[in-house]
Amino acid sequence: MGKREQKTCSVLFEPSGLKVRVPEGTILLEAARKVGVYLSSICGGDGYCGKCKVVINEGQFRSNPTGLLTPEESRENVVLACQTKVLSDMIVTIPKSHALATDQILISEDTSRFSALAGKVSEKVFDFKPLVQKTYLELSPPTIQDHTADHERLNVAIRNSIDISIPVLQMGFRVLQELPRLLRDTDYKVTATVGFRGGAMEVVQIEAGDRSGINYAVATDLGTTTIVTQLLDLITGTVVDTEATYNSQINFGEDYIRRIIYAEQNDAFDQMQASIVNDLNGLLVTLAERNRVSLNDITAVVCAGNTAMIHFLLNLDTTRIRREPYVAAASFVPPIRAAEAGIKINKRGLLYCVPSVAAYVGGDIVGGVLATGLNTRRDVSLFVDIGTNGEVVLGNQDWMMCASSSAGPAFEGSGVKHGMRASTGAIEKLRIGVDGSVSYNTIGDTCPLGICGSGLLDTISELFASGIIDRTGRFGQKPDKRLSEGDEGRQFTLVQSDCEDKQIVITQADISNLIRSKAGVFAAVKILMDTTQTKTEDLGAIYLAGGFGNYLNVQRAVTIGLLPDIDLEKIHFVGNTSIAGAKMVLLSQQAQKEAERIAGEMTYTDLMTHPGYMDEFIKANFLPHTNLSLFPSHKIVTQGAQ
Amino acid sequence: MGKREQKTCSVLFEPSGLKVRVPEGTILLEAARKVGVYLSSICGGDGYCGKCKVVINEGQFRSNPTGLLTPEESRENVVLACQTKVLSDMIVTIPKSHALATDQILISEDTSRFSALAGKVSEKVFDFKPLVQKTYLELSPPTIQDHTADHERLNVAIRNSIDISIPVLQMGFRVLQELPRLLRDTDYKVTATVGFRGGAMEVVQIEAGDRSGINYAVATDLGTTTIVTQLLDLITGTVVDTEATYNSQINFGEDYIRRIIYAEQNDAFDQMQASIVNDLNGLLVTLAERNRVSLNDITAVVCAGNTAMIHFLLNLDTTRIRREPYVAAASFVPPIRAAEAGIKINKRGLLYCVPSVAAYVGGDIVGGVLATGLNTRRDVSLFVDIGTNGEVVLGNQDWMMCASSSAGPAFEGSGVKHGMRASTGAIEKLRIGVDGSVSYNTIGDTCPLGICGSGLLDTISELFASGIIDRTGRFGQKPDKRLSEGDEGRQFTLVQSDCEDKQIVITQADISNLIRSKAGVFAAVKILMDTTQTKTEDLGAIYLAGGFGNYLNVQRAVTIGLLPDIDLEKIHFVGNTSIAGAKMVLLSQQAQKEAERIAGEMTYTDLMTHPGYMDEFIKANFLPHTNLSLFPSHKIVTQGAQ
Repeated sequence: MGKREQKTCSVLFEPSGLKVRVPEGTILLEAARKVGVYLSSICGGDGYCGKCKVVINEGQFRSNPTGLLTPEESRENVVLACQTKVLSDMIVTIPKSHALATDQILISEDTSRFSALAGKVSEKVFDFKPLVQKTYLELSPPTIQDHTADHERLNVAIRNSIDISIPVLQMGFRVLQELPRLLRDTDYKVTATVGFRGGAMEVVQIEAGDRSGINYAVATDLGTTTIVTQLLDLITGTVVDTEATYNSQINFGEDYIRRIIYAEQNDAFDQMQASIVNDLNGLLVTLAERNRVSLNDITAVVCAGNTAMIHFLLNLDTTRIRREPYVAAASFVPPIRAAEAGIKINKRGLLYCVPSVAAYVGGDIVGGVLATGLNTRRDVSLFVDIGTNGEVVLGNQDWMMCASSSAGPAFEGSGVKHGMRASTGAIEKLRIGVDGSVSYNTIGDTCPLGICGSGLLDTISELFASGIIDRTGRFGQKPDKRLSEGDEGRQFTLVQSDCEDKQIVITQADISNLIRSKAGVFAAVKILMDTTQTKTEDLGAIYLAGGFGNYLNVQRAVTIGLLPDIDLEKIHFVGNTSIAGAKMVLLSQQAQKEAERIAGEMTYTDLMTHPGYMDEFIKANFLPHTNLSLFPSHKIVTQGAQ
Repeated sequence: MGKREQKTCSVLFEPSGLKVRVPEGTILLEAARKVGVYLSSICGGDGYCGKCKVVINEGQFRSNPTGLLTPEESRENVVLACQTKVLSDMIVTIPKSHALATDQILISEDTSRFSALAGKVSEKVFDFKPLVQKTYLELSPPTIQDHTADHERLNVAIRNSIDISIPVLQMGFRVLQELPRLLRDTDYKVTATVGFRGGAMEVVQIEAGDRSGINYAVATDLGTTTIVTQLLDLITGTVVDTEATYNSQINFGEDYIRRIIYAEQNDAFDQMQASIVNDLNGLLVTLAERNRVSLNDITAVVCAGNTAMIHFLLNLDTTRIRREPYVAAASFVPPIRAAEAGIKINKRGLLYCVPSVAAYVGGDIVGGVLATGLNTRRDVSLFVDIGTNGEVVLGNQDWMMCASSSAGPAFEGSGVKHGMRASTGAIEKLRIGVDGSVSYNTIGDTCPLGICGSGLLDTISELFASGIIDRTGRFGQKPDKRLSEGDEGRQFTLVQSDCEDKQIVITQADISNLIRSKAGVFAAVKILMDTTQTKTEDLGAIYLAGGFGNYLNVQRAVTIGLLPDIDLEKIHFVGNTSIAGAKMVLLSQQAQKEAERIAGEMTYTDLMTHPGYMDEFIKANFLPHTNLSLFPSHKIVTQGAQ
C-alpha cells in the first residue's frame, strides 16, 4: 500500500491550554514554538543551558540523557523540551518560572528623573519638529488669471507653510491621483501630512478639511528581550501612553546570535520578521484602542534597537552579523513606508530606525548617547548599557568610541539559577545585615520568584561587602548558616522556602557568571579609556542604562567593579535610554540629524579581535578588580563591612 | 419562466477579420471599439460628423435617419456606425479610408536637417547626462578594520562615481533587502542603476557584475492622434530604432475634449488610461523585440504630450481641463515608477513627463521650444505647432509667451472631406499649373486616398495663387472645368476617378474650414506679437512644427497667411519637435532642468477669454489677411499667378 502515513500527535500545553498537532517524533520545544508557547532557551535548543524544563503530565516521549536534571526532577517527569521527542498525544505543563508578566517590563526611563538629568547634562535642546508634520492649508481656488495646476498650487503652499529650505518636495503618485478630486470636493481646504525622508520632504497624505490637530506616532525600543512602545501626540510632543511586551522571538533563542542561527538553519527569516512585526502591531493596536486613536492617524514609527533586531524587523540579511568581519546590511536605513515592513499604521506612514554604528552597536546605543547628551559634553563621559549584551560608549562632543562586550545576559537573569527579568516577583533590592540576615524587596511586593539585575548587583555587592565571598567571588572561610551544598555546588540561600513558594539561592556558578559579565563590561570600559588615555578622574559622568529594575543603587555597581570608581554623584542610572532616544528622534529632526552624526562619527572597536581585551577581562574577574588602585573607594566598602 | 435572457449577436469586421459578441441592440460603433477596430469619429458618436461610415454586408440592423449619407450610399448599405444598432449576427466592412497605415506616421524630426538647424539656432549644447545612469562598482569587501555596512559602502561608491553634488541619495527598500546577498554573491562587484528624481538621486536597481554597457530608454511623443516612440541607447545617446502607432483613444473621439467628455459620461478614465498604456506597451515590445533588447534593460521612459494626454496616461483628473478656469491636476509630474502607470519596462524604471505650461499648452510644446532653442535666442522668435490644436510660442531667452488656438485638426485632415493624416496614399505635394492642370505626389507613391496637411496647404495656396478662389476663399467667377456642384456645395476636383480608386475633391466647406483653422493660429500669433509689441521684422526665426507631411513648403504657409510674412530663409519646418524634446530631456538632466524652467517661466494667455482674439480671428479669415500690409510678399504671389 505504498508509503506509511505519518502519525501526528496532539500536544496540550498547560496552564495556557494551547494545543498543537505535530508529526510523531517532533521535538517538544519546536511544538511549543509552533503554537507560540514561550519557553526560556539560552542555547537555542542545543541542550546545554537547561532552561527549557517542562513537566510531562501525560503521554509518551523519548528524552536524550542529560546531566542538567536532578534525580528528583527526573522522577517528576521533568524534561528538557529541546531534548525530548513527542511519541503520542501529550499534556505538558510549563513551570511558572517561564511565565512572563508583561505588566512589569521596565518601560519608563523614569521621566521625571531623566528630564532633570537631561536638563543638567544636555546643553543642546532640540527644536520640536517631528519626523512627520501636518499642516492645514486654505488654498485660493484657481481662476482664469491664476490657473496653476493643483499639484504645484499645493506644493507652493506646503513650502510656505512647512519648510522652504528643503529643496526636494516629493509626492507619491497615488496621492497625486487623488489630489484634484479632494481639492475640488473641499473647496481647496485640505490638510497635508509631510514626512522628512533623508533630506527630502514627501507628501505622505492629503486629508479633507482641517485635520492638523490630529497626528500621532509611536516610539519603540526594539529590545532582544522586550519591546516597549510609547504613543506620542505629535501636535503637543507629549507621551500619551506606554505599552510593552516580550519579544516573541525569544522562542527562537534568548540572544540574537542564537536567533540568527535558528533563522539560517530553518530558513526562517520571514518568520522572524513576522514574529517581531506581529508583536509591534499588537502593541500598536492596544495603544490605539486604549486611547481611541485611529491607526490611520498614526503616521510614523521610530524604532531604536540593536542592529540584529532592526535587521529582523526589516527582513534585511542578518547572517553576516555573526560572521567575521561582522557586517550589517545597513547602518543607516532611510525612512521607508511602514506598510512595507507590515506595520499597520497609516498605509503611507513612515518607519524610521535610529541608525546604528556597527553590527554590535545599534541604534539603541545611539539613542542612549543622544538621550544622555554625552555627545554634547565638553568633558569625557561614559555610557554603559547593560542588556542582553553590554555596550559601552566613551567620549565627548568631539569624539566618541564604542565597544560591545559579549557580557552575556547575566544581569537580565539568564545563566543565573534564580535569575529573572525585572518583572513581578523579582527581588530588585537586597541587603545583608551585620547579623547576616537578608532583607529584600520584590517588584509588585509579591512572594519572590527570582532575582533581577538590580537585585543581583545588590547580592554580589552585599556578599562581598559582608565578606561571605572573597575577591575571586568564592564563598570563603567565614562560616554562615545560609551556606550549603546544592546540586550545582556551594550556594547561599537568599530566601528560605517559607513563603508560599520556593527557596531562592545564589550559587557559586551564578556568582562566577555575574563576575564574568561585569568583567566583560569593565574590560570594555578599560580598553576604551586606555586607548583614549582617559583617566578615571577625567570622567565627568557615567550613565548606566538597562533593564536592571527601577531602583538601582549605583554604588553597588562600583563596589563590584562594574563601573569605574568615581564620585557617586556623577553616576546616573538612566533606565531605558533606547526609547528615550527614539522619542527624541521622532519629535525633532534636529535630534534625528544628531543621531545620524553620532552613528556616523562614533568609532567602533572590535573587542573580539583586540589584543588587550582578554588580559583586561582576566584582570577584571575579581571584586572589584585585580588592581585595587583603580578602586580607591574599595577600602571604605570593606572596612564598613568588617 | 422569469426574465428573458438577452440575445447576443456576433459582429465580424472585414477586412481585419476581428470578431466580437455583443448584446442585441448594441451600437455598431461601440461594438467596433470593443474589439479595437478603428473608426474615424470626430463627433465622438453624436452622429453629426459623418466620419464613421461602414458597409453592412450581412445581417439585420436599425439605423437612425441621417442627412449625411447620399442616396447611393444608402442603397449600398453604407451606414453611420454610431447611428446603427446591431439586431443579428453581422458582417461589416470598414472602408479603406478608415484604414491607418502606421508605417507612414510622421515620426522623424528629420534628424539631419534638424541637427543642422539646432547647430544654427541653439547656442546651448546640453551635457550628456541621462535621466537614468548605470555605473559599475568594484567595492572593497569589508574587513575587521573596515566594517562599513553594505548600504553605506554602496552609497559612498555611487556618490564618488556618479554625482557627489546631489545631497539626497535614496534607495528603495526592496533593493536594500536584496543588496547583501548580491554583494556577497558577486564579491562586491555590481552595477548600480541610478535615477534622478526631482533633485534627489535614487538607486533604481543593483545588478550582478558589470552591466554598465547595457542601458536603454524610450522617448515618446504622446500625441492626440499618433504615438511615436524612439528607443535610445543610454550609453551612446543614439537613437536605435523608431516605432509609431495611432492612439487607440481615437475610438473615443478625435480630439481630447471629446475623449474627456466620453470618459466622464461613461466613467471610463481607467479605460482611457488602459488604451494609451496598451498602445505604448505595444510599441515598447515591438522596439525591444526588433532590436533584441530586454524590456528589463529599458530603465526609463520620457513622454512629451499635451496636458490631457499626459493626464490620461497617468490617470490624473482630466475633467477640469475642459471647464473654466481650465486647470490641470499637475503641470510638473515628478518622475514616477513606470510600473505605477502600467508601463512594462524594468519594474523599477522611471517614467518622466515633460512638464506642461497650462491645461492647453503641454509638454509637447515645452519640448518643441527646447528642441528649437527658441529659449536660448537673443532675438525674438516664433514657434508654431499645428496638430490637433494649434499652439504658439513667442519669445527669447528672457521671456516667453504662449497660447493655444482652438484651430481644430483641419490640417491633420479632420473636418475636410478628403482630408487624411500624413500616411500612405496621402497627397503631400500639389501644384496647379498655369494651364489649370493639377499634379501631385502621394506618400508611398500609391494611388491617392486623400490629402494630408502639407497637401492641403499647397491646395489652398495654389487655388488662391491661381485665382480659383478669392481672398475670402470662395470659388470665384473664373470658370474652371474642375469646378462642379457636389453634395456639399461647390467643389474643385483635384483627382479624377481615373485611378483604381476614388475621385478626390476639395469643397467650399473644406476651404472655409482650413481658412478658419489658419486664422485661429494666425490670430493667436498676432495677439502674442501685439501684446509684446513685436513687429514682423523683429522676428529672428519662425519654427513650424507638426505632422503635415515630410515635404512642407513653408512659402505656402505664408501665402495663405498662416505664418507672418518674413524672409523665407528664417522659416524652418521642424517636424516632430515633441519627440525631439523628449529625447533631449531623456539624454540630459541639464535639458530636463531647462524644460522645467521653460514650463515654469512661460506665460500663458487664454485666448478664449481674450477681448481681442475674436476680432483678430475675423481679420485673419481672409487670404492671406484683411490687412494686406501685414503680407507684403502677397503681391509677388498673386502677380506670379495672374
